[in-house]
Amino acid sequence: MTAAPGKLYLIPVALGSEDVSAVLGSAALRVLPDLRHFIAENPRTARRFLKAAGYPHALTGAEIRTLDEHTAAAELPRLLAPLLEGADCGLLSEAGCPAVADPGAALVRLAHGHGIRVVPLIGPSSVLLALMASGMNGQRFAFHGYLPVDKTERRKKLLALETLSAQQDATQIFIEAPYRNQALLQAVLETCNADTLLCLATDITLESEMIHTRTIAAWRKKPPDINRRPTVFLLYRVRNLSDLCPTNS
Amino acid sequence: MTAAPGKLYLIPVALGSEDVSAVLGSAALRVLPDLRHFIAENPRTARRFLKAAGYPHALTGAEIRTLDEHTAAAELPRLLAPLLEGADCGLLSEAGCPAVADPGAALVRLAHGHGIRVVPLIGPSSVLLALMASGMNGQRFAFHGYLPVDKTERRKKLLALETLSAQQDATQIFIEAPYRNQALLQAVLETCNADTLLCLATDITLESEMIHTRTIAAWRKKPPDINRRPTVFLLYRVRNLSDLCPTNS
Repeated sequence: MTAAPGKLYLIPVALGSEDVSAVLGSAALRVLPDLRHFIAENPRTARRFLKAAGYPHALTGAEIRTLDEHTAAAELPRLLAPLLEGADCGLLSEAGCPAVADPGAALVRLAHGHGIRVVPLIGPSSVLLALMASGMNGQRFAFHGYLPVDKTERRKKLLALETLSAQQDATQIFIEAPYRNQALLQAVLETCNADTLLCLATDITLESEMIHTRTIAAWRKKPPDINRRPTVFLLYRVRNLSDLCPTNS
Repeated sequence: MTAAPGKLYLIPVALGSEDVSAVLGSAALRVLPDLRHFIAENPRTARRFLKAAGYPHALTGAEIRTLDEHTAAAELPRLLAPLLEGADCGLLSEAGCPAVADPGAALVRLAHGHGIRVVPLIGPSSVLLALMASGMNGQRFAFHGYLPVDKTERRKKLLALETLSAQQDATQIFIEAPYRNQALLQAVLETCNADTLLCLATDITLESEMIHTRTIAAWRKKPPDINRRPTVFLLYRVRNLSDLCPTNS
């Protein structure tokens, strides 16, 4: 363990499309051929991604270890071993940017503790793309991950987020397992104020991409079908709504 | 105004480096040649970016209108005019992703109100790259923009963010004008608890990139020079710190 440690590259994965060069810049693509060690949320997805990215080596020769929600904290040091022996390593999420809405953050934190250099590469993040496209406040926002599944708890949380948005002038962002999207949408439409803004950002970066920001009242008239389609939900309660949404709201 | 409206493309700009193809994927680069209308925070930066991105037309023929902090809400409809007449349009920030930490969000919101399709393109966001590389909680986080400049107010805000982070298990992210970075760093080191984690993400994507997550105690021993270097600040107060940061913290 006398060698200088390797670098931990954080490699974004396409959000469901297979065209990797469309979503990653050359800085990210140039790194891949030099890597032999990977840590991935799902090794099968990782292999598919590496193949699509034109990884020039046999995938049987690449070491892909798993880091998912079942990985215990005590197993993390083992995942860092190649880095401590001097090898560079790539961390991949199931989709999007690693260590944002996946279990990779604990490993990155441990890497900092060992003085390992962490290099984030540029790629798609559904949360960030949704925020950009929402037109909601991007100077102040909060991401809450998954809301409670229990109906009463979920309703309470939604009311709290709506109040928070108005008080702090901040966009409130959350997600759901795609098969529960429709239930969450219904809860939002039932719970929130008619003039609160809701952005639904569905199938981001795919052909079927659909991103709209409308008032709750407008969504109630024609609720979309987002069942099993990956969707980011964004809530924003502006004070002087009339200034900025003259029509269609 | 009988034509279908054009699309509003949200085009990320490199964070200070000139190598545009390193940071943008081909999906973003392919869009540029078809655009003749741009809205930019700073037209000079926008021209430099377009040139570096290999924009194939004379820049004198491209229309670049300004949308910055001085643009009044009443001027926004004028900026949308080409879109309503059917032309596609590109929105560019000074650096990073438009409509996140810049004045573009109001225009995007207005575009939704007019039924204009908004297409976010993938590129660098210093806030998101910093969050990925910090190793802090990426499943729950909040971005606060700039903190108060007044010393007493800033101290109060920092204490509130630290408490919030521990209560909600959420990463707290903020920025400062680069010439005030050193003063903000000093305030953080004086105000926060010794075992709170601070990530400083400086010069992201540049050769001089420097990203470290350490305890306040560790930073106090050797505060870095971040004067006039673009830096994202991230605070995180974990409960069981000893589990995850065995050394160097």
